[in-house]
Amino acid sequence: MTMSEQWADRTVAVLGGTGPQGRGLARRFAAAGIRVVLGSRDAGRASDVAATLAESIGGGSAAVTGATNADAAAAGDIVLVAVPWDGHRELLVELAPQLAGKIVVDCVNPLGFDKQGAYALPVEEGSAAQQARAVLPDSIVTAAFHHVSAVLLEDPEVTTVDTDVLVLGDDREATDLVQELASAIPGVRGVYGGRLRNAHQVEALTANLISVNRRYKVHAGLRVTDL
Amino acid sequence: MTMSEQWADRTVAVLGGTGPQGRGLARRFAAAGIRVVLGSRDAGRASDVAATLAESIGGGSAAVTGATNADAAAAGDIVLVAVPWDGHRELLVELAPQLAGKIVVDCVNPLGFDKQGAYALPVEEGSAAQQARAVLPDSIVTAAFHHVSAVLLEDPEVTTVDTDVLVLGDDREATDLVQELASAIPGVRGVYGGRLRNAHQVEALTANLISVNRRYKVHAGLRVTDL
Repeated sequence: MTMSEQWADRTVAVLGGTGPQGRGLARRFAAAGIRVVLGSRDAGRASDVAATLAESIGGGSAAVTGATNADAAAAGDIVLVAVPWDGHRELLVELAPQLAGKIVVDCVNPLGFDKQGAYALPVEEGSAAQQARAVLPDSIVTAAFHHVSAVLLEDPEVTTVDTDVLVLGDDREATDLVQELASAIPGVRGVYGGRLRNAHQVEALTANLISVNRRYKVHAGLRVTDL
Repeated sequence: MTMSEQWADRTVAVLGGTGPQGRGLARRFAAAGIRVVLGSRDAGRASDVAATLAESIGGGSAAVTGATNADAAAAGDIVLVAVPWDGHRELLVELAPQLAGKIVVDCVNPLGFDKQGAYALPVEEGSAAQQARAVLPDSIVTAAFHHVSAVLLEDPEVTTVDTDVLVLGDDREATDLVQELASAIPGVRGVYGGRLRNAHQVEALTANLISVNRRYKVHAGLRVTDL
């Protein structure tokens, strides 16, 4: 069974789908034959980005369409949250009805930046993912895709992305499915990375990868060894 | 220049050197020709462990000796802190005079354990490494070796350890040297991982690696990709 057959009856929505990370992930999922709906505050902008993506990916890819974040959330079976940290809680509170019963994949890294680079912001609930769980009691919340370089995801010349994706969550069926989704990106392995209570350090580690990128002039990812 | 020539005038001390992580690191450094002093609360126990290590490593390795933590701290040019989190602050406060002017490498992961596995403990100063810096104002504090599997380090059958070691700190000369020390372990690369303020998530990520180990029955490490 190919990936597109496995995912034939599933739609992946990407909230914040017009940002670099959202666009990059949408590109890779669509290229793997998965139906994708990009969400944005501005439905027109989402449709434009979706059309550009679809044209760039070319024939054989699944449909990529654009919508408001609310319509995308309603359309998705699995809904990725790839919005800026600023406004994260408010958006999820607003979309709670559309997200009920769905698998939500939080991809958000709460980071601050100053002259010394990036650093982890404190989050009252512990992490962005735990905040999502707190405001979405009727959704199954997981966390993933924190460390994947948007630059690599968006680069059509990059055929495989050399990184693992840590998938966190307390529902085994959901984390298995999100691992499968991650593995749809050529080169990527979805790896179980622990319970949601251990999401903070995975989100925050993005600050360290930014330091690595600056020091070595790379687009660093992470591989789990012995696996 | 070989590693042993580069390190001919330097001694590495390992506080908590009789625990699995300390023993494992000491074994690898000594096998690379680096002079090592194991520290322990009990000097006799440290000497016993050092003698067993030296015998196990065999000819061609540098001297491994045992001492009290205080004497080891005094003897070391680079001092690794591989003690349990419980008692971390007290030990460093006590050894501040011996550690003045030295490069301190904090290896401690403040973790709690319950039925659901491991989780990160909150640390008032932000991280074990930042706590070390707070109580050792006259030392140059770095952080490293959080994720290296003690089981692999201690296994004489394991000739190369498949992991990178993230080295954190605010003093470039110190982090460069600790990266070099990490790279003395066959298979390991010392990789700059950011400033000390970003140490918490590196320490805490050990909880996630413990989840990976349980799920997949492995001894997981991490490689930084694109490097």
